[in-house]
Amino acid sequence: MSGLALAQIAEEFGLSLAGEPATRITGVATLATAGPGQLAFLANPKYRGQLASTRAAAVVLSADAAADSPVPVLIARNPYASFAQIAARFEPRPERPPGIHPSAVVDASAEVDPSAHIGPFVVIGARSRVAAAAVIGAHSAIGEDCVVGPGCHLVARVTLVTRVRLGARVLIHPGAVLGADGFGLAMDQGAWLKVPQLGGVIVGDDCEVGANTTIDRGALGDTVIEEDVRLDNQIQIAHNVHIGAHTAMAGCSAVAGSARIGRYCLIGGAAGVLGHLEICDRVTITAMSLVSHSIREPGEYSSGTPLMDNRAWRKSAVRFKQLDELARSLTRRTPDE
Amino acid sequence: MSGLALAQIAEEFGLSLAGEPATRITGVATLATAGPGQLAFLANPKYRGQLASTRAAAVVLSADAAADSPVPVLIARNPYASFAQIAARFEPRPERPPGIHPSAVVDASAEVDPSAHIGPFVVIGARSRVAAAAVIGAHSAIGEDCVVGPGCHLVARVTLVTRVRLGARVLIHPGAVLGADGFGLAMDQGAWLKVPQLGGVIVGDDCEVGANTTIDRGALGDTVIEEDVRLDNQIQIAHNVHIGAHTAMAGCSAVAGSARIGRYCLIGGAAGVLGHLEICDRVTITAMSLVSHSIREPGEYSSGTPLMDNRAWRKSAVRFKQLDELARSLTRRTPDE
Amino acid sequence: MSGLALAQIAEEFGLSLAGEPATRITGVATLATAGPGQLAFLANPKYRGQLASTRAAAVVLSADAAADSPVPVLIARNPYASFAQIAARFEPRPERPPGIHPSAVVDASAEVDPSAHIGPFVVIGARSRVAAAAVIGAHSAIGEDCVVGPGCHLVARVTLVTRVRLGARVLIHPGAVLGADGFGLAMDQGAWLKVPQLGGVIVGDDCEVGANTTIDRGALGDTVIEEDVRLDNQIQIAHNVHIGAHTAMAGCSAVAGSARIGRYCLIGGAAGVLGHLEICDRVTITAMSLVSHSIREPGEYSSGTPLMDNRAWRKSAVRFKQLDELARSLTRRTPDE
Repeated sequence: MSGLALAQIAEEFGLSLAGEPATRITGVATLATAGPGQLAFLANPKYRGQLASTRAAAVVLSADAAADSPVPVLIARNPYASFAQIAARFEPRPERPPGIHPSAVVDASAEVDPSAHIGPFVVIGARSRVAAAAVIGAHSAIGEDCVVGPGCHLVARVTLVTRVRLGARVLIHPGAVLGADGFGLAMDQGAWLKVPQLGGVIVGDDCEVGANTTIDRGALGDTVIEEDVRLDNQIQIAHNVHIGAHTAMAGCSAVAGSARIGRYCLIGGAAGVLGHLEICDRVTITAMSLVSHSIREPGEYSSGTPLMDNRAWRKSAVRFKQLDELARSLTRRTPDE
Repeated sequence: MSGLALAQIAEEFGLSLAGEPATRITGVATLATAGPGQLAFLANPKYRGQLASTRAAAVVLSADAAADSPVPVLIARNPYASFAQIAARFEPRPERPPGIHPSAVVDASAEVDPSAHIGPFVVIGARSRVAAAAVIGAHSAIGEDCVVGPGCHLVARVTLVTRVRLGARVLIHPGAVLGADGFGLAMDQGAWLKVPQLGGVIVGDDCEVGANTTIDRGALGDTVIEEDVRLDNQIQIAHNVHIGAHTAMAGCSAVAGSARIGRYCLIGGAAGVLGHLEICDRVTITAMSLVSHSIREPGEYSSGTPLMDNRAWRKSAVRFKQLDELARSLTRRTPDE
Repeated sequence: MSGLALAQIAEEFGLSLAGEPATRITGVATLATAGPGQLAFLANPKYRGQLASTRAAAVVLSADAAADSPVPVLIARNPYASFAQIAARFEPRPERPPGIHPSAVVDASAEVDPSAHIGPFVVIGARSRVAAAAVIGAHSAIGEDCVVGPGCHLVARVTLVTRVRLGARVLIHPGAVLGADGFGLAMDQGAWLKVPQLGGVIVGDDCEVGANTTIDRGALGDTVIEEDVRLDNQIQIAHNVHIGAHTAMAGCSAVAGSARIGRYCLIGGAAGVLGHLEICDRVTITAMSLVSHSIREPGEYSSGTPLMDNRAWRKSAVRFKQLDELARSLTRRTPDE
C-alpha cells in the first residue's frame, strides 16, 4: 500500500493527530489545490479562509486552527517547518550511487571517499579531497587544493576554482562558481595591474548556494561564509566578504569586497552592500536597496522610491533634482517661525 | 552566382519591389555601413536622413519613404520585421547533424528522437525525452523527467535540472539553468530548514531564454512560462512564477516567487518584481524599477531617481531623508490657504 | 632556502630598500595579519596607524612613511602596484602543460598551437584558432570562427559561442559566455520575430572577464571591448556595446544595446547603462545608479536614494510621490518673492 498513514507521520515528526489515524498520505500540495491522498498545510493566517473548503486528505496546522478543519489534522508548533520536513519524505531523489563515473578525470593526488558519487565529465584537481557520501554532479570542475565535506551535494556543473573548502552537507546548484579570482586591480602608469588573489573560500556546514551564484576567493586571507547561510540564485559575493551564520540572501543580491554581514540577516532580492562595510546581526535589507554605510542596530532598512505611473514619476523625478533648492527656499521664506 | 536576386527576396517575403529586380544581395547591414551587395533597412524615422547617402545595394522600408531612396527598395508594412526575416537567410548556421555524439552519456530509460542532435559531453537523465529535430549543444545536462520539444535548440552548456518540460522551438543560450530548486526556507529553532521543491518548470512554444538566466522549479506546482516569452541574459525567475505569452524581459531583471506577470508585458533591464504580486497584460516596467505592488492597469511604470552629478545628487539625497519633515513644515506654515 | 631575499625583490622591481637586505620573504599578507617571513604593504593612509605594530618581515610603502616603520622597507612610488607585482611571485600557479587532453573534441578545421594547453572535455569548433601559450581550461566550449590570442587564459567552463576574437593575454573566469545571441526582437502580428545576430565580439589585449559575465555578439557589426578593460563577475554586456580601453566595471553592472562607454571609466557595482547612450572618457558611475542619458563631461554621477530605517523611508517614499504637488504649492504660496 503506497504512502504513509497519518498516524505514522504524526509519530515520526512528533505531531498531535486529530482525526482518522489510518488516513493514507501519498503526497503534498497547497490548501487550495490538494486532492485525495494529499497533505496540505496552513501557516499564514491569510489563507485560513481556504481551510473550510479544502479537499486535502489532511492538514498540518497550529492548535488554534484545528477546530475549523473539515478534515483530519496534524497539529504543529511550527506548521510550515513540520510541513517542510514531511514534504521531504515525498521528494523524488534521483539515485546517485557511490563510485566514480568512468568519464571523470581525477588527479592522482586527489582523494575521493569510496562512498562519494562522482558524475560524468567531472574534473578533480591536484590535492583536492571529496569526503564521504558527497555527490559531485555532472560537469562539475573542482580545481586544486579544495575540500568537499561529508554529505555535500554539487547538483551539476558547479565550479570550485581553487582553495575552496566546503563544510558538511553544503548544497550547491548548477552554474555556481566558488573561488574565482577576486576583482583586485591597481592603476599603474595608465594601465591596470592585476592584484593576485592568494586566499580561498571557506563555506560552513549546511549552507546552500543558488544557481549561477559567484563567491570569489580572498585576496589575502579568505572569503568566509559561516554555517547555515542560504544564498539564492545569481548572487555575487566579492573577495574577503564575511557572512554570519543563518543569514539568508535573496536572488541577485551582491556584496562588495571585504564587507562583513552579521548573523540572522535577511538580504532582499537585488539588494547591494558596498565594500568594507559592517552590518550587525539581525538586519533586514529590503529588495533593491543599497547599503551605503555600516549598520549597527538590528532592524529593517531600505532605499529607493516607490513604483509610480511613469508620467507621475517623471514629475517627481524632476523635482528630486531640485530638492535642495526647494528645501532652501522653504527655510528662507519662513524665517519668522 | 552567390546571393539572391532582389526579385527573389521580394517574392519570398511578399514585398513590393521598386528598382532593378536583378540586383544581387549577398548580405545585410545598417543603412550607414552597408556597401555593395548589402541590403539595409529603414524602420526608425530618426535614421531617415541616412537614406540619401546610403551605399547599400537596396533598402527595406515603408511605402512613405520609398521615393527618397537613391537605390532599389523593398516596400514592407513592417520594415524591421521583414528585414529580420530576410537577414535570417544570410545567417551562417553551424551544422548540427542528427545523431548522438559518442561521448554523450544517455540514460537507458531516456528517449532521443533519431533526428535530434546530441553534442559532445551531453548528459541525459532517466525518463527524459528529446523530440524530433532538437539540438542539444555541447556540455548540456538534462536531468530526470525532462521533455525537450521538437525543434528546440539548447545552444551549449544548458542545464535542465529536473521536471523541466519545453514546448516546441524553444531556444536556450549557454549557462542557463532551468529547474533548479526554488529558494524555500522555514526558520525552525534558530536554523533554516529546507522546503523541498517538488514542482517543475513548463516552458511554452517559441520561447527564448538568455545566457546565464535561471528559472527555478516550483515548490508545489510548476513555474510556468507561456508561449513566445522572450528572456534576455542573466534573468532570475523564482519558483512558481507565471509569465504570460509574448512578454519580453530585458537583461538582469528578476521576478520573486509566485508573482504573476501578464501577456505582452515589457520588463526593463534589471527591473525587479516582488513575490506574490500580479501584473496585468500590456504593462511596461522601465529599467531598474522595483514593482512593489500589484498592477491592474496597462501602462508604463517606474521607480528610482534620475542620474545627477554626484555633488548635486548628494544634496538631493540628504533632502530625501528630510522629505516628510519638509512636507509637514510646508503644510503647517500655510494653514490659511 | 625558500623565499626571496629582500634585496633581490628590490632589484627585480626597481625599489629602494632600507633595512637588512638579507631578510627572507616567503609570502605576502596585510599589515595587520602579516607574520614572520611575510611582506606587507601600506598604500592607504587610513592604515598608517597599523605600521608601528606590524609583525611583518618587511613593508612596501611610499617614501614619506618609511621613517615610521619598525621593520625593513621597500620604498615605492606606487606601493599598491609594487605590492601587486611582488605578490604575483608568490602566487601558486597550477601546471597547465602544452598539449591537448585526450578527452577534448577539436574540429578538424580548427588550429591549435602546440604550446597551448587544452583541458579535459574542451570542445573547439570549426575554423577556430588557439594561439601560442593559451590555456583553455576544462569544460570550455569554443564555437565556430573564434580566435583565442596568445597567452589567453580561459580558467574553466568558459563559452565562446561564435565569432569571438580575443586579443593577447585575455583572462576569462568560469561561467562567462561571450558571443551568445544579442536580444533582438521585432513584434509582428502579435508575436515576436527573432532578429538574427550576425556580428561577433572583439576583445582587446589584456582584458579580464569575470565569472558568469555575459557579452553578447553584435546584431550587425561587432560588440567591442577595447584593451585593458576589466570586467568583474555577473556583468551583462548587450549587443553592439563599445567599451573604451582601461575602463573597469564592478560586479553585476549591465550595459544595454549599442551603448558606448569611454576610456578610463569606472562603473560601480550593479549600475546600469541604457541603450544607445554615450559616456565620455573618465566618468565614474556610483553603485546601483542608472545612466539614463548620455554623459559628455568627465566626473562622478549617481542616482538613487540613501539607505534609511524602513519606517522613516516609508514616510519619505510617500512624499516622493507628492513631490511635484509639494513643489507647486511652495511656488504658488510665495508669489511675492
